[in-house]
Amino acid sequence: MAPLLNRRDLQFQLFELLDTARLPERPRFADHSREVYQDVLKLAYSVAERHFANHARAADLNEPHVQGGRVVLVPEVEGAMRAFREAGFFSAHHDEELGGLQLPWVVMQAVMAHFQAANIGSSGYPFLTIGNANLQRVFASPEQQRRFMRPLIEGRWFGTMALSEPQAGSGLADITTTATPREDGTYAVSGSKMWISGGEHELTENIVHLVLARIQGGPAGVRGISLFLVPRFRVDGQGGVGESNHVVLAGLNHKMGYRGTTNTLLNFGEGGESIGELVGEPGQGLAQMFHMMNEARIGVGLGAVMLASSGYQVSLAYARERRQGRPPGSRDPLSPPIPITGHADVRRLLLRQKCVVEGGLALCLYASSLVDDLQTGPEAERADVSLLLDLLTPLVKSWPSRYAQDSLGDAIQVMGGAGYTRDYPVEMYYRDNRLNPIHEGTEGIQGNDLLGRKVTQAGGRGLALLWARMQADLDGAAGDGVADEIRRAVEIAAGQARDALQSVTSRASTLGPELYLANANAALDMLGQLVVGWMWLRQARAAARALPEATGDDAAFYRGKLQAARFFAAHELPKVRAQAELLASADRSTLDMQDDWF
Amino acid sequence: MAPLLNRRDLQFQLFELLDTARLPERPRFADHSREVYQDVLKLAYSVAERHFANHARAADLNEPHVQGGRVVLVPEVEGAMRAFREAGFFSAHHDEELGGLQLPWVVMQAVMAHFQAANIGSSGYPFLTIGNANLQRVFASPEQQRRFMRPLIEGRWFGTMALSEPQAGSGLADITTTATPREDGTYAVSGSKMWISGGEHELTENIVHLVLARIQGGPAGVRGISLFLVPRFRVDGQGGVGESNHVVLAGLNHKMGYRGTTNTLLNFGEGGESIGELVGEPGQGLAQMFHMMNEARIGVGLGAVMLASSGYQVSLAYARERRQGRPPGSRDPLSPPIPITGHADVRRLLLRQKCVVEGGLALCLYASSLVDDLQTGPEAERADVSLLLDLLTPLVKSWPSRYAQDSLGDAIQVMGGAGYTRDYPVEMYYRDNRLNPIHEGTEGIQGNDLLGRKVTQAGGRGLALLWARMQADLDGAAGDGVADEIRRAVEIAAGQARDALQSVTSRASTLGPELYLANANAALDMLGQLVVGWMWLRQARAAARALPEATGDDAAFYRGKLQAARFFAAHELPKVRAQAELLASADRSTLDMQDDWF
Repeated sequence: MAPLLNRRDLQFQLFELLDTARLPERPRFADHSREVYQDVLKLAYSVAERHFANHARAADLNEPHVQGGRVVLVPEVEGAMRAFREAGFFSAHHDEELGGLQLPWVVMQAVMAHFQAANIGSSGYPFLTIGNANLQRVFASPEQQRRFMRPLIEGRWFGTMALSEPQAGSGLADITTTATPREDGTYAVSGSKMWISGGEHELTENIVHLVLARIQGGPAGVRGISLFLVPRFRVDGQGGVGESNHVVLAGLNHKMGYRGTTNTLLNFGEGGESIGELVGEPGQGLAQMFHMMNEARIGVGLGAVMLASSGYQVSLAYARERRQGRPPGSRDPLSPPIPITGHADVRRLLLRQKCVVEGGLALCLYASSLVDDLQTGPEAERADVSLLLDLLTPLVKSWPSRYAQDSLGDAIQVMGGAGYTRDYPVEMYYRDNRLNPIHEGTEGIQGNDLLGRKVTQAGGRGLALLWARMQADLDGAAGDGVADEIRRAVEIAAGQARDALQSVTSRASTLGPELYLANANAALDMLGQLVVGWMWLRQARAAARALPEATGDDAAFYRGKLQAARFFAAHELPKVRAQAELLASADRSTLDMQDDWF
Repeated sequence: MAPLLNRRDLQFQLFELLDTARLPERPRFADHSREVYQDVLKLAYSVAERHFANHARAADLNEPHVQGGRVVLVPEVEGAMRAFREAGFFSAHHDEELGGLQLPWVVMQAVMAHFQAANIGSSGYPFLTIGNANLQRVFASPEQQRRFMRPLIEGRWFGTMALSEPQAGSGLADITTTATPREDGTYAVSGSKMWISGGEHELTENIVHLVLARIQGGPAGVRGISLFLVPRFRVDGQGGVGESNHVVLAGLNHKMGYRGTTNTLLNFGEGGESIGELVGEPGQGLAQMFHMMNEARIGVGLGAVMLASSGYQVSLAYARERRQGRPPGSRDPLSPPIPITGHADVRRLLLRQKCVVEGGLALCLYASSLVDDLQTGPEAERADVSLLLDLLTPLVKSWPSRYAQDSLGDAIQVMGGAGYTRDYPVEMYYRDNRLNPIHEGTEGIQGNDLLGRKVTQAGGRGLALLWARMQADLDGAAGDGVADEIRRAVEIAAGQARDALQSVTSRASTLGPELYLANANAALDMLGQLVVGWMWLRQARAAARALPEATGDDAAFYRGKLQAARFFAAHELPKVRAQAELLASADRSTLDMQDDWF
């Protein structure tokens, strides 16, 4: 039986790679200690294993459906939500006065990782609810927070994000949902919202939708978009739940995977008014949403990593048991077949998974630790931290989403025909993860965000910070005893990426906006691979430092880290060059292609 | 509505890229003409569209199940099989005396491509039946052919290949199914066979299993493996169908995709004797199977290409209709959104699909034309053709299988959330194709076959032939007006691949068998990418020659070919270098990894 996740590695990531154990030195975390964090993770493991992993396949096989006008989920989801609530995870990162533990975000993400590993579908409900509450925490009025945020933090109501519409997905500027002012200062929200996860269910007494809409008569484009709190059932001044707010389920989407998360088409204002309250100022809707995007996008990246992690654990356990074939050159048919971990190509498939899972986890937790630094780190560094986090966000979202798919393909491949059947969960993870390169901003959106905005933002300060931090690890690696070929592979790839970015950004005005962005995907892949290479360098440093004193399982663990870093350096980092050259060449082949030539 | 496939491209592939129109110069095809072939393709299109495409989704949603001891398929499969039979496709490539048309194999593959595009699941039954009959045609006795092959050619019975067992998939040397001689010269076959496609159904009066088994008392390993004809129902001397032959369905496999093809676990000799007849000589089982493997592996590659083709057609049609966003730099919110084919990154996703589909099709049909050359080409060249085909086979099997998956991921990505739902078929194609890197020899098997056998076979003669043919196209490209950067990209990649192969093969004995094969996957990918690059060079040559005289749609078609070749040269071929360097470095990172380090 494969474990939910590699607990040893999570300890390594939080306490050997990151300085999580020193966060209690910050005032907000003064009551904490490493032991507190470990207890929280232990609780997460047990709740996730017991109440989430138990129905991942059942939810996949019995996707949400409508019966008697209500959305029916597999019954275990309710128990999962109760257990999550009772463990205090809806509020754990919030202020003590809100009932929270003031957990650092990096620990909160490590908690969430357990639920994403156990059951990505059911974890969607808390994921959205927490994100919704976090947004309200920043932008909603105290009055709104009392009525609409508190119930989310208590896990009594759930939340959604309602951005897309049937005609406007990636192009949010074209949403047409309207908000008509009512006499009491509220708005009547009217329009259709598509792809709304958790948009309708009977898990909670109420659902709070965060809806992007245009106030009637406002400007066209993004400047006219505002954000509204629109509950499923109306909420009175005391926070009591009243009659229907006329948010009508128009349909469920039937997806390839991620089936446990209900995904809906909702009509607002059908058969009556959907009353909504404006959040903050008019016209700030997209900005408010994007303020929360760093967080949501780290969450998507982490979800992808944890799906890959689950696939890795299952395929590794299988490979250790499955006997097949003999080593090359040893063809005695009477010798017993060997476990397939003995075959180089199977080890390649397992090593690549290990690199995606542990490299991706390092990246997501690194970014999460920057969220903490932004909120509780030294004041003087926060502007820089913010720029670095902005730069990393598209990479944190896209690299794991894309490479987890390859990794899960490798998990299937290790298991052969068995991996392709429903007898094992890897085919489900493979279907689940294919959503991740799409939602919360497609690959195309991430590429444009990276190259069109983030690398040049504040005069390239974010990028300069990235190079500086990477250089510091390169400088320290030799002293730690990291093998030279690992260090050199990162250095070479970094040089290639740096030159390529320099080459296009310096010519941006000559190239013009279309050609400048034409190969944004190459930039996204190039920088993603490099940053994960850097994460492997960091892991190799920590492992090389710890190995001399380590024995037994610990020594094997550190040797595995070093070997995976070596593998990534030899097999993956050299791929950066082709992407860097493509980017620097300002290749026009996609631009010059005409529609009728396809 | 997307077309079943691009008919214009199929014409280009057969008649402009390959010399199919000149095949009637060979005696076996003397009665044919280009028009005959075109009529056959027209018939295939219509039968595939009407009788196969109609139930692809129904078969996916209602996978085969057992009811009252019988396997139940969606009812449309029967009509599909009848239409295929009535169109004469079970026999089309066979001798006239067998009721066939003596169609060349390349045309037969082009026929099959329609059915694979329309419905990969239902096409599995004819695919296996044709392969089974082809094997019998070479190895079975005239008497066996009369009783067991004729009914397959007539489409009255279906056939299977029963190789794998629960404990022996990739490691066929370890099969344990036994064949005990009976007094009348037949054998009692006993054992379990796993992953048997088409292993049980009620579509035909009988099913002929080609079963690998060991004759009792024979040698261990592959030398003890023989091939047997074992029917579902016993067959008398006149070919009449009698009582049960005790081949018992032990279970159905529930797969992620490819659901229309029943996949079974069969027990032979349960509750009575499964009587089988030996094919050819004892101990020849694997050799006989592998004789047919070139054919089956081209078929798998082509199936992958056609799934990618279907995804490409659907996503292209969607992209042309879907409006979203505006070009970079044009941010007037009142301008209408543009069709997404206007975005460079969407064009990238479509171009990559075009490259996989048309480059993969060129490769599969090229290999199919070599099968014809082997059978009907100039006698003096056949030994060489055989070596070249042997070399190409692992590439033809693996490159499309792997890259079709990326291509179908691109199709989903073009369509965003819509592509991830069952409202469109691309998510189904994506699930279907994931089988292709597994069956008929996994990627690992193909890599070892390529590097461990094919590149060094006959003193490297196959490889030398490949370089010579590639060089001829390189030499001719400039004269045809192919852009220099396309030619140069192929030349550079070919040089890198050649050097890398030279580097490892020349050190094979120093490296030893394990290290020599450790990076076989890199060799497989490297040579696959290069060979498809060569196919794009060939297509560019044909397009460049035809363009000056072309007008209208034809001119757009040729321009699209040239642009796709340019794209492949700029975006894909540069990736060869990293794989070549990895191969040449004889990297040990997978070999050095230890089981307990994971």
